[in-house]
Amino acid sequence: MTAQTREDPAAASHRTPPVHTDPADVPLEAALIALADPVRQSLVRELAGAADWERNCGSFDVPVTKATLSRHFAVLRDAGLLEQRDAGAKRLNRLRRAEFDAQFPGLIDLVLRHEEASW
Amino acid sequence: MTAQTREDPAAASHRTPPVHTDPADVPLEAALIALADPVRQSLVRELAGAADWERNCGSFDVPVTKATLSRHFAVLRDAGLLEQRDAGAKRLNRLRRAEFDAQFPGLIDLVLRHEEASW
Repeated sequence: MTAQTREDPAAASHRTPPVHTDPADVPLEAALIALADPVRQSLVRELAGAADWERNCGSFDVPVTKATLSRHFAVLRDAGLLEQRDAGAKRLNRLRRAEFDAQFPGLIDLVLRHEEASW
Repeated sequence: MTAQTREDPAAASHRTPPVHTDPADVPLEAALIALADPVRQSLVRELAGAADWERNCGSFDVPVTKATLSRHFAVLRDAGLLEQRDAGAKRLNRLRRAEFDAQFPGLIDLVLRHEEASW
């Protein structure tokens, strides 16, 4: 991953690249709050069922606006759960399962076992 | 545990008995939110280090008012984490560890492993 720099002309001509937080730097409180929300639980479940970078941001089946969805992705990035990268017009996604599990063992598994959302 | 009834004269002459939620009836969202708060994490850690019914409500070392502490206890009861009973003027506490673990395996352990709070 390249660092985010304001001087990069390629970055400046496109939208802001996603900023990530390493799971090792995430407080337990932030991890639990990120996974408490039913929409974010659904995103994590969909990502867990897909290959890394397979899913783009428009491909998720959740009943929220695009702006709200962006906010949910930001919360997941801040909690060390989600890595994103831009590929042309699409933003691709990867669940940071191994890194997050190392810091918060069992937490993603708990979410995957509880299938509560029904839109 | 006896059920809470408004007709019970003993209950009516004292404060309202605590109302409990079975961990089996607790949504994952409520369990995660209950454990996300640093004060409630501290209460859970203190209860985990004590015997059942050993700790009364005034014995916890957390920097909040009595009213706020009562609210935290209510959230823990609603999340299936805490059982309380009145003994004279004191309200005694028990962490519902086995029942909660059966429903949300590993979640209490995660909180016990993360010692983040420093008042």
